[in-house]
Amino acid sequence: VADRIWWRFILAVALAGLPGLPAMAQDAPQKTAEILAHKALSDDWSFKFLESLTSEIGPRLGGTEAEWRAADWAAARLKAAGMTVHTESFPMTAWLRGVETAAIVKPAPQRQAVVFRTYGDLLAAAPGSLNGKIAVVTERMVRTVDGMGYGLANPIRRQGASEAARRGAIAYLHRSLGTDNHRLAHAGALNYEDGVPKIPAAALANPDADQLERLSALGPVTVHVTLTPTTDENAHSITVVGEIKGREKPDEIVLIGAHLDSWDLGTGAIDDGAGDAIVSGVGRLIAALPQHPKRTVRIVLFGAEEMDFSDKAYETAHAGEVPKIVMAGETDFGARRVYEMRLPQGAASSPFGKMIAGLLPPLGVLLVPEAPRHGGSDIQDIGADGVPEVSLSQNGLDYFDIHHTADDTFDKVDPAELAQNVSVWAALTYLVAETGVDFRALANTAAKP
Amino acid sequence: VADRIWWRFILAVALAGLPGLPAMAQDAPQKTAEILAHKALSDDWSFKFLESLTSEIGPRLGGTEAEWRAADWAAARLKAAGMTVHTESFPMTAWLRGVETAAIVKPAPQRQAVVFRTYGDLLAAAPGSLNGKIAVVTERMVRTVDGMGYGLANPIRRQGASEAARRGAIAYLHRSLGTDNHRLAHAGALNYEDGVPKIPAAALANPDADQLERLSALGPVTVHVTLTPTTDENAHSITVVGEIKGREKPDEIVLIGAHLDSWDLGTGAIDDGAGDAIVSGVGRLIAALPQHPKRTVRIVLFGAEEMDFSDKAYETAHAGEVPKIVMAGETDFGARRVYEMRLPQGAASSPFGKMIAGLLPPLGVLLVPEAPRHGGSDIQDIGADGVPEVSLSQNGLDYFDIHHTADDTFDKVDPAELAQNVSVWAALTYLVAETGVDFRALANTAAKP
Repeated sequence: VADRIWWRFILAVALAGLPGLPAMAQDAPQKTAEILAHKALSDDWSFKFLESLTSEIGPRLGGTEAEWRAADWAAARLKAAGMTVHTESFPMTAWLRGVETAAIVKPAPQRQAVVFRTYGDLLAAAPGSLNGKIAVVTERMVRTVDGMGYGLANPIRRQGASEAARRGAIAYLHRSLGTDNHRLAHAGALNYEDGVPKIPAAALANPDADQLERLSALGPVTVHVTLTPTTDENAHSITVVGEIKGREKPDEIVLIGAHLDSWDLGTGAIDDGAGDAIVSGVGRLIAALPQHPKRTVRIVLFGAEEMDFSDKAYETAHAGEVPKIVMAGETDFGARRVYEMRLPQGAASSPFGKMIAGLLPPLGVLLVPEAPRHGGSDIQDIGADGVPEVSLSQNGLDYFDIHHTADDTFDKVDPAELAQNVSVWAALTYLVAETGVDFRALANTAAKP
Repeated sequence: VADRIWWRFILAVALAGLPGLPAMAQDAPQKTAEILAHKALSDDWSFKFLESLTSEIGPRLGGTEAEWRAADWAAARLKAAGMTVHTESFPMTAWLRGVETAAIVKPAPQRQAVVFRTYGDLLAAAPGSLNGKIAVVTERMVRTVDGMGYGLANPIRRQGASEAARRGAIAYLHRSLGTDNHRLAHAGALNYEDGVPKIPAAALANPDADQLERLSALGPVTVHVTLTPTTDENAHSITVVGEIKGREKPDEIVLIGAHLDSWDLGTGAIDDGAGDAIVSGVGRLIAALPQHPKRTVRIVLFGAEEMDFSDKAYETAHAGEVPKIVMAGETDFGARRVYEMRLPQGAASSPFGKMIAGLLPPLGVLLVPEAPRHGGSDIQDIGADGVPEVSLSQNGLDYFDIHHTADDTFDKVDPAELAQNVSVWAALTYLVAETGVDFRALANTAAKP
């Protein structure tokens, strides 16, 4: 409650402050961006979009029929919101969940579990030392605002199975990359290394990892694991695109996106239905303006991000277009409030940076001088090809409490926080599309002295 | 962290205050009670007891082999802690979990679900109106400090199935009696009425109840439910008893208890391993005194409470002893701090009440004038027979976030809060055993004018 009161206060100040702004600052693009931002704050379209996506479509694993249904659903929504819509299909290997059980059967003659309290301990284990055993890593990821704790713990899930197999293990379990204490495991992709046996691997809920730690301290622990996932190497995924064609420079593209697929345990509300709702809401607001911005605004709902296919597929399909993508941004970190904006190198101190910086304080957002660490997993490949990336940092303190779990459901999203995201993205996207700011040129200038 | 600092402050004040107490108040029983209370605060025996029970025994459904293992384990612990131990077996009907699935299959020809947003709406439905349908009640229980919200919502689970069946329903689903928003259902007993079909019934996790609510607002929802629990009418349960024989009046019994059985989804940490740890810790502290108190202190770890057998079984087995049980208390509301003590009618204003009231403020506990609302489910039948009941109120604000779910695990318990419970129960139990206070006489006196 206190939080909402604070937010209303900010909004009241922002609205009250509008007429008082000096006329100089009221050039047309900034004024329109302000109106868009304020409209977004009191608009529940994105929240309803998310409610419908999570309720009527629900879980939508990349490369499955559920993802294609989501794509149909999204295409219709974007069209109804005034955008020009098309879809882009690409091949992928789909992953399909099977039976998953893991039981501690201490007194029974099953496989012995070897519990490592840190990932470093597993890496320090000698070759052959895990022969015939189940390796377990119980290192805990650390809660941070920006998700850095997830990034640093990621090898535990990504590489752990191959590292365990390299040392002889016949299965691998690890503590979920999650900051909660619920009996819900956090899913996630892993990478099997070539030349190392592909052993079964799974994540344990935090309390179960605790239990294995406690029991292993008391003596040998035996565990029975059943995992029967399958893959389909001939699957395909679908990316949905909505555009607002630029009125003067239609070939210059301002791209913002999120991913439409989700893990299957929850209904993909914070990961990444919220992102879909945010960028689609931005597209709707811009499409409803009296005139389109000068450049084309492209809303991309990527397929198969969770399965690691989205970035390469987009880069491959749009290689020739890369020089004309003037900005790429992605929202894929939940639905909490944005507190920080990062523009490409050199832009924060430019006239464009000053213009947008003037809009942000009433929205509770700080423009910081640094360029984005990374724009996001869907746009990292085109980013590496030179597309200027922007990022909006969201409060991620509780993101990894529910990320990739059955708990990722609609009830976790606060409508006011979601609307603030739409507001900030709308202002930024519109201004880049309308002012014609050239981030590549600003970066070159910044790099010279 | 702030909470712990506050607690250390209280403790520091308590310890600093000891030498300053007027000599008059320092009669021997009060002094010993103070020492017990302070010992308990810095003692981790109960916390380790709980760790071992939840890790080495784990879930222990009443009437099953797991409960009997828990009984063996507890008997050995109480004996090692200096108590005289015996066990009491009684017959019961055991319940055994089977397969449990419920899937929304909207477009498929399964059973239609009729969603009632309040339990009152179900009760208002006409006879026959649910013929062949699945009744769903999505009313939400309310979070309160004292659990009153649970008590008032209880008929939704206890009687809902029979009420739905009476109106023709072929299955019954209800929103879990729980205050969290996790994808974990809250288990619990229900009562089938005689003469009404015993239809399958199950609890939905809160987010799933939300989902059914949302979808039912959009149109007909069909649901497929599979439930295959079984019962064993020839099962038995075991209650474990540890005693410290009174040195002057061994036939007068001061009884404190908790229940040893648990639901099977978690490991029974807050319900009611914490209670077992608290009362066992009290028994251990009193057994370790230089001399036993005048009356007998009886620690009872009840079997089969969750299955509703504990109270009647204890009353039946101990009918002749009831007049000699001078006090009964039970702890079965988690492991959070105690904030309030209630003594039998007339006792708070008596010299005994004043003596104990003097000990409580440093422990953060208030002695209130009212008698207990109810002593607890294990002792309600002997309470109805006239055994004076005491109660300690714990902070239960988050108790129903994890009550009866898979989340009821050891990591949810704070050692300092658990120790405070042991501290307060130890002071009260010892003082009643040593001073010979006669609660029945006080109640009679109080009732007269």
